[in-house]
Amino acid sequence: MKISIIFHSVCANNYLMAKAFHEALRTKRRNVSLYRVADSDWTEQEGVPPAAKENLRDMMSLPIATPEAMLGSDLVVMGSPTYFGNVSAEMKVFMDSAAKYWIKAGLAGKKLVAFTSVGNPQGGGDLCLQAIQTFGMYMGMLCLPVPTTLVPNENIHPFGIIHYSYSKYGEKLDDKVQVAIERFSKQILK
Amino acid sequence: MKISIIFHSVCANNYLMAKAFHEALRTKRRNVSLYRVADSDWTEQEGVPPAAKENLRDMMSLPIATPEAMLGSDLVVMGSPTYFGNVSAEMKVFMDSAAKYWIKAGLAGKKLVAFTSVGNPQGGGDLCLQAIQTFGMYMGMLCLPVPTTLVPNENIHPFGIIHYSYSKYGEKLDDKVQVAIERFSKQILK
Amino acid sequence: MKISIIFHSVCANNYLMAKAFHEALRTKRRNVSLYRVADSDWTEQEGVPPAAKENLRDMMSLPIATPEAMLGSDLVVMGSPTYFGNVSAEMKVFMDSAAKYWIKAGLAGKKLVAFTSVGNPQGGGDLCLQAIQTFGMYMGMLCLPVPTTLVPNENIHPFGIIHYSYSKYGEKLDDKVQVAIERFSKQILK
Amino acid sequence: MKISIIFHSVCANNYLMAKAFHEALRTKRRNVSLYRVADSDWTEQEGVPPAAKENLRDMMSLPIATPEAMLGSDLVVMGSPTYFGNVSAEMKVFMDSAAKYWIKAGLAGKKLVAFTSVGNPQGGGDLCLQAIQTFGMYMGMLCLPVPTTLVPNENIHPFGIIHYSYSKYGEKLDDKVQVAIERFSKQILK
Repeated sequence: MKISIIFHSVCANNYLMAKAFHEALRTKRRNVSLYRVADSDWTEQEGVPPAAKENLRDMMSLPIATPEAMLGSDLVVMGSPTYFGNVSAEMKVFMDSAAKYWIKAGLAGKKLVAFTSVGNPQGGGDLCLQAIQTFGMYMGMLCLPVPTTLVPNENIHPFGIIHYSYSKYGEKLDDKVQVAIERFSKQILK
Repeated sequence: MKISIIFHSVCANNYLMAKAFHEALRTKRRNVSLYRVADSDWTEQEGVPPAAKENLRDMMSLPIATPEAMLGSDLVVMGSPTYFGNVSAEMKVFMDSAAKYWIKAGLAGKKLVAFTSVGNPQGGGDLCLQAIQTFGMYMGMLCLPVPTTLVPNENIHPFGIIHYSYSKYGEKLDDKVQVAIERFSKQILK
Repeated sequence: MKISIIFHSVCANNYLMAKAFHEALRTKRRNVSLYRVADSDWTEQEGVPPAAKENLRDMMSLPIATPEAMLGSDLVVMGSPTYFGNVSAEMKVFMDSAAKYWIKAGLAGKKLVAFTSVGNPQGGGDLCLQAIQTFGMYMGMLCLPVPTTLVPNENIHPFGIIHYSYSKYGEKLDDKVQVAIERFSKQILK
Repeated sequence: MKISIIFHSVCANNYLMAKAFHEALRTKRRNVSLYRVADSDWTEQEGVPPAAKENLRDMMSLPIATPEAMLGSDLVVMGSPTYFGNVSAEMKVFMDSAAKYWIKAGLAGKKLVAFTSVGNPQGGGDLCLQAIQTFGMYMGMLCLPVPTTLVPNENIHPFGIIHYSYSKYGEKLDDKVQVAIERFSKQILK
């Protein structure tokens, strides 16, 4: 089983989510790769705390995502910041670069998991997840929903994992998101 | 200016939101009416606390919404519980009952404001608001968005006002929702 | 493998689509059932041509859909008329009646296929299919997309099968829709 | 009244739609500007017929859209190709470049009209229009719907004007789209 985790991240929040998926999904027998979406004008912003700085530098050393990575995978995990109720432009550039596989349904049948980091609960994170899944549907992919029972007594959106960043830079994921990613990963692999 | 507030409510949360809009919108010169959407199998559920009981009884004494109420209004304020990322079936019954006005664009140009009560921030409240607005667009109505600056330092979804009920019965709206409704109402009337 | 086809139909167009799925999916080894969604105020409309009348009467003799039918199925095929960019109120009543299975994720992992009949290409059929899939995602179901290559040189929406009714009563499905349903059914069973 | 028409076009179909809006909206008293969204890797594709070539060259001589153009406008008309049920990446780059106006609701109250060119009726053109309107809602803009009665006996999507390109390069808009743009423009100006 080959898995590609493809994310766009500006403040490292999506990177931390991607890394949490990476840790939860990889085992000796599985080939799990982490790719960042190209972001030509990315710069480390001012006022980044030291702990976050390290994450941002780690992130920038990752390989750039290509549509070929999806072609060779059984499962694609895609994450994007939520910008205006949609994926980021950089993630959309990546999606459009997969157009060549669309006409021949080259990605059909592959599994897709979505995640996003969004400023706050009223930021429309689920609209971003829906945009990722709409892309997946066009590609013929199987969008994996989060079942209600994933974490007892915890509400998680069925469209995927949402992290509320509250304008923070990538420090540490809160426990709820961490647990959700771990449990969802386990379930995906069943 | 004539305003109709049309809502479906089961546990009185949407009723409290509708009432808050009613209080914020009505003045001497404006005709503001409150209508509940028909709900043929509505029953007061067990374990309802006394304060909520009174609200539920008040609610049941309101007139039933008809599409004619929209026809005679300049502004329609619509609220529904979020059920499975959509409006409730009862609200959809009401919407479909307006089909006769669709073909002649009888509601075109009227303003539309959306609100919803949803269990929690991961419940997809904005998908319900979007369903209300999609109905409005089909009817040719103008969907009024909530501007980012409505309440300083407070995040409010652009699609409308969302209340998180956390399984509570209609007791008292929290201050954030109350303030959002008051300010949005003021702005609508400008 | 157990399959339930659950549809709402007023003018028999969705019924014809459901029947086409039924014929394409059933074999000796599979248990495929056809259910119509309850429609309490359904009446045969005036001006129905004789060929369509027979279809409508057949339709009314089918058993009424219950959420239990979904619980016992491996694959659910759901169809609804598109009303205002959403499912019909009757279909939403059916969806809401499955609420009891939501909290325990009782339908999780089951496969879901969506179809719709809509007046014309500008009627928003895909928005109705998306509403069906959003319901499915909340229930933890796997929404099966239509791959680009399903019918060579034919464009079919990835969200499901769309039939343009052009205000016609259920006569005969056009060949394109018929072929799409047959091929999609074959592929689902692979 | 100041109007900005902002579009992304690859094969000149959206350009022709933008031009039709331009012609229908401009008069002596109105300031109507036409802007193309930046497309860094745009190249004239092979096999472009002569009539289309001229359109493509005209298009490339237009000024590049900036978010400032929206800031100074009362009405924004936005058009994008439909790629995978969403706007093109280039249009999303433009949208994200308006982030600076989001926090201060700088575009709030401006009117927004959406249009798209999509391969065929099953291509999800309305999903692209919805993505444009979701952007508009976040910005506090008023999305203008197309009323059912715009063109008698003609079905037009309420979310905006959709052109089916069927893989053709920008030659001549078909009459239905032309008439829809002319009538919608007239109505917008009323």
